[in-house]
Formats: sequence, C-alpha cells, structure tokens
Amino acid sequence: MNYVSNRMLNYLEPQMYARFTILANQKGCINLGQGFPNFPPPQFLREALSQEALTEQLQYTQTAGHPKLLNSAAYFLEQRMGLKINIDKEIVVSSGAQSVLCCLMQGILNPNDEPLVFLQKKQQICIDLLIEFSGGKHIGVPIKPKVFNTKENGQFIYSDEDKWELDFVQLEQSINQKTKLIILNSPMNPIGKYIFTFIIEYFNKDEYDKLAEILEKHPNIIVCEDAAYHHITFGNNQPFIYPRCITHPKLKDKSICVMSAGKMFSATGLRVGFAIGNENIIKGMKAAQTYHIFCLNPVNQTATARCLDQTADGIYFDSIRHLYEQQATKLLKGLVESRLNLNYWVPSGGYFIVTDISNVEIPNKYFTQNDVKVTRDFAFAHYLINEFGVVCIPCSPYYENKETGQNLVRWAFCKTDETISEAINRLK
Amino acid sequence: MNYVSNRMLNYLEPQMYARFTILANQKGCINLGQGFPNFPPPQFLREALSQEALTEQLQYTQTAGHPKLLNSAAYFLEQRMGLKINIDKEIVVSSGAQSVLCCLMQGILNPNDEPLVFLQKKQQICIDLLIEFSGGKHIGVPIKPKVFNTKENGQFIYSDEDKWELDFVQLEQSINQKTKLIILNSPMNPIGKYIFTFIIEYFNKDEYDKLAEILEKHPNIIVCEDAAYHHITFGNNQPFIYPRCITHPKLKDKSICVMSAGKMFSATGLRVGFAIGNENIIKGMKAAQTYHIFCLNPVNQTATARCLDQTADGIYFDSIRHLYEQQATKLLKGLVESRLNLNYWVPSGGYFIVTDISNVEIPNKYFTQNDVKVTRDFAFAHYLINEFGVVCIPCSPYYENKETGQNLVRWAFCKTDETISEAINRLK
Repeated sequence: MNYVSNRMLNYLEPQMYARFTILANQKGCINLGQGFPNFPPPQFLREALSQEALTEQLQYTQTAGHPKLLNSAAYFLEQRMGLKINIDKEIVVSSGAQSVLCCLMQGILNPNDEPLVFLQKKQQICIDLLIEFSGGKHIGVPIKPKVFNTKENGQFIYSDEDKWELDFVQLEQSINQKTKLIILNSPMNPIGKYIFTFIIEYFNKDEYDKLAEILEKHPNIIVCEDAAYHHITFGNNQPFIYPRCITHPKLKDKSICVMSAGKMFSATGLRVGFAIGNENIIKGMKAAQTYHIFCLNPVNQTATARCLDQTADGIYFDSIRHLYEQQATKLLKGLVESRLNLNYWVPSGGYFIVTDISNVEIPNKYFTQNDVKVTRDFAFAHYLINEFGVVCIPCSPYYENKETGQNLVRWAFCKTDETISEAINRLK
Repeated sequence: MNYVSNRMLNYLEPQMYARFTILANQKGCINLGQGFPNFPPPQFLREALSQEALTEQLQYTQTAGHPKLLNSAAYFLEQRMGLKINIDKEIVVSSGAQSVLCCLMQGILNPNDEPLVFLQKKQQICIDLLIEFSGGKHIGVPIKPKVFNTKENGQFIYSDEDKWELDFVQLEQSINQKTKLIILNSPMNPIGKYIFTFIIEYFNKDEYDKLAEILEKHPNIIVCEDAAYHHITFGNNQPFIYPRCITHPKLKDKSICVMSAGKMFSATGLRVGFAIGNENIIKGMKAAQTYHIFCLNPVNQTATARCLDQTADGIYFDSIRHLYEQQATKLLKGLVESRLNLNYWVPSGGYFIVTDISNVEIPNKYFTQNDVKVTRDFAFAHYLINEFGVVCIPCSPYYENKETGQNLVRWAFCKTDETISEAINRLK
C-alpha cells in the first residue's frame, strides 16, 4: 500500500550526497562530496554547549528565539555589519537555515504564488519543494556565464571579476501578478539551468541597484537573501560587509536575510539559523514557526549566543576565512596538477571547487551503473571512486536539463589538511 | 504593506499560553497555565547533553535520526512495550512531536485530503493548521461525555471508568473518498466541540476493536496515534503498555505512533520527538523531513539515546508517574477545598486538571477586558489573576463554539511542591 503524498514521491530515495557518502564509507574513499567540515568545530562552541546544558532551563522558549540569542545576534550584526535590528520584530530563529526558509514559505506564500528564484535550483537546495509545500510554483531565472576560467598553469588568482551575469531582462519578463518573492543566494553556491559554474560569487552593487530599480515598479515584491556563506569570502570581498540586500538603501526595507550559525561555526549539525529583516515578513515567519517546530532547544540557542558574543570582534572569522582560502588553494593546485586533465574555476569563497571534465578520458564501463546508462559526470564520479578512491559530486542533478551539467563535478575543500593531501596523493 | 500569507493571518498573535505566561510574570502570579514542568529535568539528561557536546560530531546526521538514538529507542520500546522495530524502516526522529506531526502531514497528505481528527481540536494543538499546510481539510469527530464527575467531598478516586464515548456512528458517516488519515490522541488531552472534560483518558480495547472493524472496510485509511503522555498514567493504566494502536493486532500495520522524548524526560525544550510504525508512512515522513528541518542536532540525539538506555528498565518512569500523581492529588484537593466552589474531574494521567466554574461568582468588571466583552472562562482567569494571583487557562478557545467551553478552565499540575502549595494557599 502506498501512503506517500504525491509531492514526496520523487524524493523518497536518499539525496545524492547521502548516497555518495555511503559509497565513500563502503569503499574507504576520501570523501570530498558532502559539504560539511570534517575537522572539529571550535572548542569554544563545544564548551558553550556543554556548560549551557548544565544550567540553562530546558523548557519551551519563545518561538521567535531565546532572548539571549536574539540579543547576541543583534550585537554581532551591529559590530560586523553596522546593522541595527529591533529584536522584538526583526529577527526569528529556527532549526537551521533550511528550517528558516521553510517558515518563510509557509509564512508568506499563498497557493499559486510564483516566487522567482535566481537560478534554477533543483532538489538539492530544495527551494522548489519548499515553495510547493506552500502551494506555490517556483520560477527559475537563469544566470549566464560571462567569463569562463580555464587552466592557468597553477597560477591562482582570487579576483573580484564577475564570472556570470544576471539576466535582468528575463527577470523582468518573468514578473507577473503572482510574483511575491525573489530569492537570491549571495554569496551563492550557484546551480542552474544555464550556469556553468558553482563558484561562490557575489551580487555586486550595480546588480543590486538594477534589482532595486525593477522592484520600485513592483512594490509588492519582497526579497529573500540566503547568505549561509557570508563569513567565507576570498579576495577583496570582506566577510559580512560585501554588498548585500539587507544593507542596500533601496532594498533593505523589503528584504530578509537568512544566516546559518552552524555554517559560521563549522558545525553543520548545530541546527541554528536565523532571519533578519522586514518586520511584516518576520511576523509571518514567527507565526509559521509556532506550528512548524514550535521552538528551538534553548541550550543550542544560548550556546550560540555565547559564540556570537565571543566572535563579534571578527578575529575568529578572519582566521576561518584564511583557513578555507588555504584549503581551497591547496585542493585547486592538486586538482590542476593531477592526472585528470581538469579545467577549473577559481572559487571566491564558500566550501566548493567546480571543475570541468570535458577532457577526461573515462573508461566505457563506468557509463553503466546497475544496468542503467548514466551521464558523464556520474561515470566520472564512479571512475574516481573505483580507480582513485576519491568521492566528488556529479553536477547534472542540479540541472533541469541534465546535459548541461554533465561535464561538471564539485569538490568540497572544507576538509582537514590530511584529507586534502591524501586526496591529492591519490589523484597524482 | 502586508506580506503575510492568508493561512497565517489568524495566527499572528502569541498563543494564549504565551499571553497568560506574560501576564503571570508581570503580576507576580503563580503560573499553572502553560504545561511545562517548572522543576529541573533529571540531572542525567543535563549530564548526557553536557558530555555529548564535548565529543559527539557536530555535523549533519542522517535525516531519519542518529543511529545511536534509533538503536536506543528500539531497545527502549522492546523493553517497555515488547515492540520490535526495524530501525532502517520503521522509525523517524524530528524536532519534537510537533515537528514529527508536521512531517507526517507533508509526507502523506495530498491537497484536498480530509483527515479525521478525534475531537475538534482548534489552534492550540494545531493539528488543523498542519493539515492545512499540506492543502488538506480537517474534519473533527466529537467525543461525547458519558460520566460527569462532580465534587466528591475531597475523596479522590483514580478510576478506569470511561468518562466519554467515541461517536463511532459519526466517525463512520464522516469517512469519504478523501479520508486518508485518522488522528487519535491517547492518552489524550481532549479538547473538543462537544466534550466537557480535559481529563487525560485512554482509548480502551473495545474502542480499538471497533475502530479496527470500521477500518477493515476502508483499507486505505491509516491511523496516527499521538502518545505524548504515554509515560504519565494513573490508576490501572500502566505506562507504555495500556491499550494502543501500535500494539493492536488489527491496527498496528496501518498505524504510526508519535512520542516525545522532551515530555518523557520533563524537558519540553529538548525538542526530540519520534514516530514509529508502518514503513511506507515513515518513508514519506523521512522524505518530508529532508526538506523540513533536514536533520536534528546530533548532540541532542545521542544524549537522548543515553537517557533511554538508562531508563529502559522502567524504574525512572515509575517514580515520575508517582510524582505526577502526587502533584495531581495535591492540586485537586486544594482546588476542591478552595474558596472557588469548583466542580472537578479526577485526571487519570498527563499534566492537567480541568474544573467546571459554573458555580463561581465572578465580579462583573472581569467580563470586560480592554473594552471587549469576554466569555466566562476568560473573566474567571482574569479574576483569578487579579484577586488571587494565580494563572489558569480558559478553555473556550479550544472549542469552535465558544459557549461550550466557557465554564471550563485548565490547571497544570506539572509543577513543584512549592508552586502548588503557594497556589493552594492563595486560593484558600
């Protein structure tokens, strides 16, 4: 008997990340697949959790968030971004950024609304499914490649140069009476129908001005800026204070910004995310949260508050940013110098490198898995697992048109020195 | 500008519990309103959390739940209920029972499905809203009073006698092509259109047989048994092993059972709940959870696992059950002997006593609050706050027809000796 709802029927199998992690464990591979740090989170986070567990009350807390966390987040954001928020009205905490986005969709979308998402994000980031949960329909707006990096003989340049371009013409054409929300991801981990790169990129000031200009004609449309990687920026983009909706003079009053304490403290299992911004949007999100998770564990919240207080001077995040840049550089150099003949792009932040595999010769046998023909990126991933003992992530599932992504694979550099060195050794 | 979705417009104000807790704090009242223990959770829970925070990995875990927790829950359920579950297929963990129910609705309901809920539950338990989140419509089935306790001169009897009756005729009449799910709450904290008591009650074996008989004619309908209070049972109903869907020979294969580790360990802020049962239903719930909260904090899960291991012999729960029964008896005696002239019902488990206030003389001025006329139960609650310094919860909001609940108020006995003594003193 099948009891599963129609909306979930296509999502019953484990996500691709989970499947590749299982394979990595089975075959003793180095896992550069799923994007979680494999080094321990900072000791100050562990200690904060451990101490708060002994003293903090363990009963229901405010749905919007524990007062200590709201205060500490406000203090942090003022210190690092110069933002002043009203903690009674302009912030809500939930169980990770995922849960924050879920509350957003429930809190503001009506059936048949059609939010626009910059880039066609499929399954993995699940924006489309969250929108569907609320009865809405997701409309993707492509981002087109502008500059296309290739191998540069081991010379790594972290530039601020735009590698892609928002299609504002299509954005404007896509807006209709049902458009209520535009979702951005900046810095973004872009995955899309037309985009050829995963490289973490930023919307620039001119693009925000252009977006603001369009939205002046459509005052009912609001913006959600997903900023999970706002602390990991390379090159000239400074953590937290690169151009953003939430600080743009014409966008900030119609925006919310989603952040992840788990990502900020290299602990993806912390499950503490928050949104700040327009109080009417936040009000809808708080109401949704009451019926979604009701409230968040207070220990996790007060421990996060202590970590935010402790890092509000920015010193910790400078070191984190340098650590990630170092790991990115090391892995990129290893990939370029490997036997694999990869084309690459230089990342400018985040957790990932994406390489192009068009020049790689993949043995024929890997194009069939469990008697099913697979795309080139999957063939490559299985080739890599079996002949090199390294796991990467195929990119075609991110694309509605699988052909588009079949020459791309993703490598996570949020890993220990030892893991990255061993991966490089295996690929030599 | 209003951005809030239509579904949330009626839910923007804080829940009644929160409003009365704020009042209690402002006016220095004894708070017998919200149902959370005001005594500390067991030290073994705090210590488990504190120790796991120092060692457990803090990255993404399995969406279905941390393997340690799945194993410990299976062991516990086998020890206490004689149930054997397959941890790969028959259990899912989420952020509290609330979140488990949210995954259930997303995972199995299609738009326009019409689940039947035993008793007309409004807002507070939020089943109706969770159903609406999934595009479904909630149909209430009333439970009718059979025996109606009144004052018994301080003689407290914890009987197994049924105080209400399921209307199986109306249940059967309500079933149609759109019926996919029946939701029970057993032991229940009943709130409904026709029901005159909050007293925690149990479905009895005959009722389960009758339900099974009806469902044999409708093999597509499944049952969700919400058992948040399954450890707090008075009288002859034994914790965990009273009659249940999940152990009923004809119902177990079409049921899931929802449990709350937070309620079990007197820590409503723990936010660890789980569901066990039919693997196809669990499959849909796991898929929904991936896009709902993705996964739960691993420290909270492994700490809960340790607590379940430690209490699987049932000794801890015997002491908890006796503690709650003691507090219930003490509070009930105090209420009956108070100046208030209350009618009462003897609870048989859970966190609450409900009293009838028909005989109470309430000064006229309390029937108007902020220039708005209020029902008798609200007038009583404000009278109690202002003239006695005690907070209880009015029951009319639980009823679609407010008249029905306006002579009922709810008192939480999940409080310290000191709190209950002081409340009784103030009501003398």
